[in-house]
Amino acid sequence: MKLSNEQKRYIEELFELLKIPSISADSKFQKDVNDAANWIKDSLKKIGCDKVEIIKTKGHPIVYAEKIINTKFPTVLVYGHYDVQPPDPINLWDNPPFDPIIKQTKLHPEGAIFCRGACDDKGQMFMHIKALEKMNQKNNLKCNVKFMIEGEEEIGSENLEKFVKENKAKLKSDIILISDTGIISNNQPSITTSLRGLSYMEVSIKGPNKDLHSGLYGGAVPNPINILCEMISRLKDEDNKIIIPGFYDDVIEYDEDARNEINKEPFNLKEFKNSINISDIHGEKDYSTIERKSIRPTLDVNGIWGGYMGEGSKTVIPSEAHAKISMRLVPNQDWKKISKIFKDYFISIAPKSVSVKVKTHHGGYPYLTPSDNPGYKAAYMAYNETFGIKPLRSNSGGSIPIVPMFEKELKTKSILMGFGLDTDDIHSPNEHFGLFNFFKGIETIEKFYKYYSEIVN
Amino acid sequence: MKLSNEQKRYIEELFELLKIPSISADSKFQKDVNDAANWIKDSLKKIGCDKVEIIKTKGHPIVYAEKIINTKFPTVLVYGHYDVQPPDPINLWDNPPFDPIIKQTKLHPEGAIFCRGACDDKGQMFMHIKALEKMNQKNNLKCNVKFMIEGEEEIGSENLEKFVKENKAKLKSDIILISDTGIISNNQPSITTSLRGLSYMEVSIKGPNKDLHSGLYGGAVPNPINILCEMISRLKDEDNKIIIPGFYDDVIEYDEDARNEINKEPFNLKEFKNSINISDIHGEKDYSTIERKSIRPTLDVNGIWGGYMGEGSKTVIPSEAHAKISMRLVPNQDWKKISKIFKDYFISIAPKSVSVKVKTHHGGYPYLTPSDNPGYKAAYMAYNETFGIKPLRSNSGGSIPIVPMFEKELKTKSILMGFGLDTDDIHSPNEHFGLFNFFKGIETIEKFYKYYSEIVN
Repeated sequence: MKLSNEQKRYIEELFELLKIPSISADSKFQKDVNDAANWIKDSLKKIGCDKVEIIKTKGHPIVYAEKIINTKFPTVLVYGHYDVQPPDPINLWDNPPFDPIIKQTKLHPEGAIFCRGACDDKGQMFMHIKALEKMNQKNNLKCNVKFMIEGEEEIGSENLEKFVKENKAKLKSDIILISDTGIISNNQPSITTSLRGLSYMEVSIKGPNKDLHSGLYGGAVPNPINILCEMISRLKDEDNKIIIPGFYDDVIEYDEDARNEINKEPFNLKEFKNSINISDIHGEKDYSTIERKSIRPTLDVNGIWGGYMGEGSKTVIPSEAHAKISMRLVPNQDWKKISKIFKDYFISIAPKSVSVKVKTHHGGYPYLTPSDNPGYKAAYMAYNETFGIKPLRSNSGGSIPIVPMFEKELKTKSILMGFGLDTDDIHSPNEHFGLFNFFKGIETIEKFYKYYSEIVN
Repeated sequence: MKLSNEQKRYIEELFELLKIPSISADSKFQKDVNDAANWIKDSLKKIGCDKVEIIKTKGHPIVYAEKIINTKFPTVLVYGHYDVQPPDPINLWDNPPFDPIIKQTKLHPEGAIFCRGACDDKGQMFMHIKALEKMNQKNNLKCNVKFMIEGEEEIGSENLEKFVKENKAKLKSDIILISDTGIISNNQPSITTSLRGLSYMEVSIKGPNKDLHSGLYGGAVPNPINILCEMISRLKDEDNKIIIPGFYDDVIEYDEDARNEINKEPFNLKEFKNSINISDIHGEKDYSTIERKSIRPTLDVNGIWGGYMGEGSKTVIPSEAHAKISMRLVPNQDWKKISKIFKDYFISIAPKSVSVKVKTHHGGYPYLTPSDNPGYKAAYMAYNETFGIKPLRSNSGGSIPIVPMFEKELKTKSILMGFGLDTDDIHSPNEHFGLFNFFKGIETIEKFYKYYSEIVN
């Protein structure tokens, strides 16, 4: 890929940021985390932002900045994060994890930047700073822009929620723009328009007050493991539908057109099965695999334990058995309501012979961007122009808890305008981000502002 | 309890044996194990046995002896063991575990010997040596007696089976006599007439070839834990009957009279529930608790594990899930057949999306002494005379693998003529054996020989 001088400078600048090992999870890197925040503050100042500040929290600082062009213009709040995942296992990296290098790959023939944070999220966040720089230079920006770049995304954004709650006026905007997701491929852009929520529970079944000999007591006493298994089996029916009363009450059911649209996403069932080596898929009757992993709620046991788990055999009836059970939720399910009906139902199906404890670990709301949202429309038009292909709506099966949190606290939708690929190895050794994607991202963000100001003004 | 000089001598002798820490599980006590074997050899010689020998095995030695009175008389083979359980946790013993002492207890107002092995099985085995000594002195024995006293009972009798198989002629007898069980109480003697067998399986369910993110894959792939739970729930029906086809085919069904007899055993349901703190019992429909834990087969999950078992939460769909499942079997179930039908059925109920492994850990046959067996009749009459109360038949829910092994190899029934109490803390700190029980045992064994020779001759 032949780079312009300007592009070369962007890469050089990004490399400076990437070299700072701002690992939020490890207190040994506290200074680096602060250095990264300062580097971003300087970078935002340099491109002409006002009110650039570093906001201290109980944890890592948040960088905030504004570029108010005209109070009559719509305001875009850009969210990103400067912290990164630990690079472990380091021995699996082909190059040092904080020494960025450009190498070609099959999917990135133009070259990709290999470094921890290249894609998640330093590279994607930096696209927004460079897009604003360009628009400032051209003086064609018809939106106001606010930046909120945090340092705790990889450790749960614990202090961000407090900041958001306490600064609603400051953070007021018409739309939130986030580049921390991906596109289907470099030939097929996509916009993530829904996220699943989560309700994560832990259940404990207690039978006898001590472990018992399975010969002397077997057959006559409640075995907590057998009973736990029976209770778990009563959470779904034979069609893999969840039979907790009221579970599907608030689930958005899509009509045929919408389902056809969803099922247009490129997907090869054989490749899917081969990639995880399963001989058959397994899921809710009457829904496709794409639907099952995006627009339908789930119930999965994430862990189970009880009794003797060592080598060989032990003839024990254990006193207790435990499981971690989580449900992925879809718009408009309320995780607090779901956690409650799960708990009520689970307790109701227990036999009298055991005692049951149900604990809610945590939860999160699902999220949906409707296709008539002006931000979505602007993003759609931007991708369409820069990629030359209409972007698809992508329904993610995962959860990004800050997005529904922003909606709840700021009453503002987020546009998930990502440019990474699934294969970019974020959170893994050899994380990388394509040069094509980086520059296409800057270009698409610029177009977003253009279309958004046209639609809203 | 006022002891005669003879009784005092018996106690002194038993103390000598009890002081030897013949812990079979710990190789540090190898010399003590050998010393105990030698002590028994000397003891059997002293009372006038012939052919007293120590038989070496790959593990600990077996002491063998004979007292052949007349080849026309019936022959009784006495089995016992001189090895003991480790005394751990030592700090919970009120006195040193290998320094025998006589103390009163609520259930043993006449005094009880406190020492590791006092009841299991040195004390109970020694009753047979003393009974034979008395009969030799009185010259009234109308049976031949063989002794086979092993040193590996507490570690699985691994080398005994080989010895038995290779010495069938030497061990030929009409009945085997074993004192390694108990009686209901000192006011209600009982004879253990049935033992449950065992089939111990381990199952593994494999879904995807790696742990998956429950957001990105949840709903669309087989979750091995959910599936394992569903499969386990399909092993029993709502009445807690095992629904593996053919499972009950060989189970002896008792008629009303026999069931009434079984249910005569003193049993207080409230006390049973309180003792293990359960609010309700749980078991096969149409059977009492006594029946459920003795004459009915069972299926218990002894251990289960899979996925994330740590603190907090992890949103994983695990690749595998595992369980240990055992079935207690009753006469005339064949553990090899049961293991096979379990495996076939378990594999047959798995969905196509997962792979299943079923492994047989080990098994054992159930055992039954019919009430028309001459040895049983003699034991019945002996207890009735010495205790002044008719003994009850006691069906144990546990397994004593050597008993069905003797039946299989030697074609000979065993009479389980025990004298311990459930509360004697065998395998626990402060093991003890009542003086009443010890002397009553010697007396009852003497009577057994008398009645047995009368019935058989």
